[in-house]
Amino acid sequence: MIVDCDPGHDDALALLLAAGDYRLRLLGVTTVAGNQTLDKTTKNALKILALAGAAGVPVAAGCARPLVGDLTVAEDIHGASGLDGPDLDLPVGGVADVHAVELMRRLITGSPEPVTLIATGPLTNVALLLRSHPEVTPQVRRIVFMGGSTGRGNTTPYGEFNIVTDPEAADIVLRSGLPTTMIGLNVTHQALATTEIIAEFRGLGTRLGEICAELMTFFASTYHRVFGFEHPPVHDPIAVAQVIDPAIVRTVTAPVAVELTGTYTRGATVVDLHHRTGRTPNADIAVGLDVGAFWRLLMAAVRQAGEQRTG
Amino acid sequence: MIVDCDPGHDDALALLLAAGDYRLRLLGVTTVAGNQTLDKTTKNALKILALAGAAGVPVAAGCARPLVGDLTVAEDIHGASGLDGPDLDLPVGGVADVHAVELMRRLITGSPEPVTLIATGPLTNVALLLRSHPEVTPQVRRIVFMGGSTGRGNTTPYGEFNIVTDPEAADIVLRSGLPTTMIGLNVTHQALATTEIIAEFRGLGTRLGEICAELMTFFASTYHRVFGFEHPPVHDPIAVAQVIDPAIVRTVTAPVAVELTGTYTRGATVVDLHHRTGRTPNADIAVGLDVGAFWRLLMAAVRQAGEQRTG
Amino acid sequence: MIVDCDPGHDDALALLLAAGDYRLRLLGVTTVAGNQTLDKTTKNALKILALAGAAGVPVAAGCARPLVGDLTVAEDIHGASGLDGPDLDLPVGGVADVHAVELMRRLITGSPEPVTLIATGPLTNVALLLRSHPEVTPQVRRIVFMGGSTGRGNTTPYGEFNIVTDPEAADIVLRSGLPTTMIGLNVTHQALATTEIIAEFRGLGTRLGEICAELMTFFASTYHRVFGFEHPPVHDPIAVAQVIDPAIVRTVTAPVAVELTGTYTRGATVVDLHHRTGRTPNADIAVGLDVGAFWRLLMAAVRQAGEQRTG
Amino acid sequence: MIVDCDPGHDDALALLLAAGDYRLRLLGVTTVAGNQTLDKTTKNALKILALAGAAGVPVAAGCARPLVGDLTVAEDIHGASGLDGPDLDLPVGGVADVHAVELMRRLITGSPEPVTLIATGPLTNVALLLRSHPEVTPQVRRIVFMGGSTGRGNTTPYGEFNIVTDPEAADIVLRSGLPTTMIGLNVTHQALATTEIIAEFRGLGTRLGEICAELMTFFASTYHRVFGFEHPPVHDPIAVAQVIDPAIVRTVTAPVAVELTGTYTRGATVVDLHHRTGRTPNADIAVGLDVGAFWRLLMAAVRQAGEQRTG
Repeated sequence: MIVDCDPGHDDALALLLAAGDYRLRLLGVTTVAGNQTLDKTTKNALKILALAGAAGVPVAAGCARPLVGDLTVAEDIHGASGLDGPDLDLPVGGVADVHAVELMRRLITGSPEPVTLIATGPLTNVALLLRSHPEVTPQVRRIVFMGGSTGRGNTTPYGEFNIVTDPEAADIVLRSGLPTTMIGLNVTHQALATTEIIAEFRGLGTRLGEICAELMTFFASTYHRVFGFEHPPVHDPIAVAQVIDPAIVRTVTAPVAVELTGTYTRGATVVDLHHRTGRTPNADIAVGLDVGAFWRLLMAAVRQAGEQRTG
Repeated sequence: MIVDCDPGHDDALALLLAAGDYRLRLLGVTTVAGNQTLDKTTKNALKILALAGAAGVPVAAGCARPLVGDLTVAEDIHGASGLDGPDLDLPVGGVADVHAVELMRRLITGSPEPVTLIATGPLTNVALLLRSHPEVTPQVRRIVFMGGSTGRGNTTPYGEFNIVTDPEAADIVLRSGLPTTMIGLNVTHQALATTEIIAEFRGLGTRLGEICAELMTFFASTYHRVFGFEHPPVHDPIAVAQVIDPAIVRTVTAPVAVELTGTYTRGATVVDLHHRTGRTPNADIAVGLDVGAFWRLLMAAVRQAGEQRTG
Repeated sequence: MIVDCDPGHDDALALLLAAGDYRLRLLGVTTVAGNQTLDKTTKNALKILALAGAAGVPVAAGCARPLVGDLTVAEDIHGASGLDGPDLDLPVGGVADVHAVELMRRLITGSPEPVTLIATGPLTNVALLLRSHPEVTPQVRRIVFMGGSTGRGNTTPYGEFNIVTDPEAADIVLRSGLPTTMIGLNVTHQALATTEIIAEFRGLGTRLGEICAELMTFFASTYHRVFGFEHPPVHDPIAVAQVIDPAIVRTVTAPVAVELTGTYTRGATVVDLHHRTGRTPNADIAVGLDVGAFWRLLMAAVRQAGEQRTG
Repeated sequence: MIVDCDPGHDDALALLLAAGDYRLRLLGVTTVAGNQTLDKTTKNALKILALAGAAGVPVAAGCARPLVGDLTVAEDIHGASGLDGPDLDLPVGGVADVHAVELMRRLITGSPEPVTLIATGPLTNVALLLRSHPEVTPQVRRIVFMGGSTGRGNTTPYGEFNIVTDPEAADIVLRSGLPTTMIGLNVTHQALATTEIIAEFRGLGTRLGEICAELMTFFASTYHRVFGFEHPPVHDPIAVAQVIDPAIVRTVTAPVAVELTGTYTRGATVVDLHHRTGRTPNADIAVGLDVGAFWRLLMAAVRQAGEQRTG
């Protein structure tokens, strides 16, 4: 499994889950501009891997901007560092001297079995991989991405941040013919980091647990200010959870297209749930979440990673 | 009050409510192509008014097609007549020999007080009125239309039938500067004609009650077949109900734009509920419905109109 | 024949030609916002008709703004009055108390033979007529409009002023199924009011000739300043000339569509001269102009109208 | 200098000119899908280099499809092989085992001085290079591409083949901030392979001259059939000629944008020659061609390459 990400508070939990769950083999991590600029998201990925005791996982930086549009980072949500909140001044690993796309290519080509790509940021790197190296696609088992929505968005009324940031990349992925699973806001808005969840992180009694609590406390404050949400939704780890245990996320197969040309709707993921448009289904769309099972899974991974480190 | 409509099963209930509630003065009814072709929606409007004992209300036919796009009627939902279900073979009044826009102009100009326009079909006629006769706008109190959605649509993933049918007309209305209230699918999908509601219509013991029951039974069958809904939503009368008693519908003031250019989203009503876009609020958007109060209001109007007829 | 216009320097010559040529019967003149606001274009039309000795021709004001977009007048080209240059302080006729669309409807309905519509401004009024009163279309012989281009535009790189001002109206006209002739910039840029032409106007020895010379002198100055043209193109009278003598304008039948959705190309008239798109031909497109014959026709009309007035 | 191309008849002449002119150092050739599929354009590039006595120049295959849209090859113009006409069965060099983007990156990084990129096909590879390896841009002297038009197109009324094939790639190049020169149809349609030109190729008395004559004879036949042109325009070598001798092509600096969203105009290069839009100039736009000098340059290169081979 490879995780392509732009940490980001909820990306951080996704990485912890990916590094911490015993059923997954995390081959590499690649980074992309999105929640913050590329240098910051790369630094943040290295920090999270160090925290997770996974500093040996290779990391490569990818695209510093979307394929076609301009980059607008989510500093109002993730702060100036992209991971504001806890003090994360710690020794971290180095970054590979190849581009994210090249690292993905090598890891996929070198893997004895098909590789699952999990993307929790804009899909720029994944799209570039598909266009630059179509020869690897038979070795890609499937692509699971956090992004889009079957209903309303967050960045625009119908647009979710990851897809609005690089709609053309999402279009490339969704029309690639590869098995693809979309984890959209319609389910991620059910996974709220409530006061109880934050207390549970803190109650783990590890430094990692404390850091997660501080990340979520910061995240809660910005979501409250920007969206008026009582508790912040934890989007990205659901994509990882779906790979670990598909039963956690209920999906339906449906046609989904990315709006590239709308004046007010660019970046909307237009999901035809009622099969009214006659288009061919091209993705599995998350429509339900077992919230309890999700938090149990995530909490267990954070507990395990935290104890390993302190142990 | 003037009702511009394209009956249509739920338009029929809207007309009955508009004709039957003692607090409203129905100055005229104008018709437009939408749920069916113009000749059929006009004939249906005449029938409903006759049933409501309001055959004296002037009726004028308007536009036979949308401003810019092509017409696609909703025969799968409303049947070949536009009002399939009950036998409605009854003597009806005549249609005015002026265009709907001209009738609206005359009624508005001749009214001693400002007039409320209620639109339950595509907004073609209303838009034409605004462009042809801007001089009447000071006499228009406000426009309340059933159409659009803050979330998903019904005709396309994000597009509701009335707005998708004539997006340019909706754009003209929503940018007119007149006080406008949008009653979208996000609330109308809460007003379901359940088995109990249909039984209540029938239990009124009048021919009109029986006809309403038969209309809703047909409507239920098509909504079940096309959308898999257990019970059909009764969209249009909510617009009338909101005029009778604003407390029935909770609204918020927000920016709303009609998507005119999207490949997959043409006709979407893009409502910026979280004020993320910086656009100026231009409409009151329905976001909540007092379902019980709505049905009590509608049932009372149908009871009264039915008893007048049999009395 | 009815002329719908927004004078405008070249509209003025078009009106003079329409009023002055003995082969035409000018049933009425309607005005639209475009080169200037509606009140100014209406006043200008009345002035020109008075100058042409045709003050008896009925004039009605139409739409004060485009169907969908916003109005941007061409004050940089036509000046603050829309007809800057000569002193045109003279007694004029009155304006009808009906809307332009209603005047067109009455004139067409009342005419013993089919009527040709000539439009030299944005097509707002003509489009409204087609949508409000489709019953008159059998009595419309054809529509000849100045607008669009087979190549570059003037208001935007590919957009001509009349069509860019109201692209939806142009779309309605071009998809109406009525015989339509488009007189675009590709030919009108051949009809230049050179120094010799201006001298010829002046040499007619009439007040009208002098006024034409002054109009063209002003027009030359703005075209030079805005576009760097040595001599200004006289667009609108070519549409009238084509009706008087079709041999003056060479046309081909081709598919033409109005771009409604482009980011940079909204309002472009996309003419498929090489039949590469497979679309059905829907208009006669002007592709050649007999420049000498055009000027002879126009000069003769101005001479005759001027002598009538002074005689 | 690197040439990125999709040969193609006129690409073939561009490669011959690039390989044959003594002032240029051809570092490498990369190929892209466009006039034909990637395997065919790659094979054709190898053949042309072999013909030019430049089999040692490294060749790498790039993208087999555009970034976002689907590929439609120009088989009606270039035939089933992409280079129909002469018999080109000859031993050719091999293709590099790296992607075109990687070869470009290496050649640019390894060059002691800045490198000029000449693109004569869709800009897919160049755009991917800019997005994957922004670090090389300081070493790119400029980009000269054949594509677009200031007026009409060839694939659609306003769209030229290379840009219509991959509009997003062209947008990426034109908004890259790198010095860019656009050689569009407005000038390439002046470089016609007339009967005299074909005779001149044949008169060189070399096998290469004969092949050029046969290529142009085939090209003439398809251009005549598809567009009704008397002689075919030789687009691509003008981009190379402009690099060899800038005086051959007159350019102006202007804003140019690629239309990505139009219904009928997608892929149009919208050049604001009169600076009416207020956008910032971002490219040098070819507006004039010294036709005689161009043909002398091209003929000299073909003569020299042909004599070297036979010598």
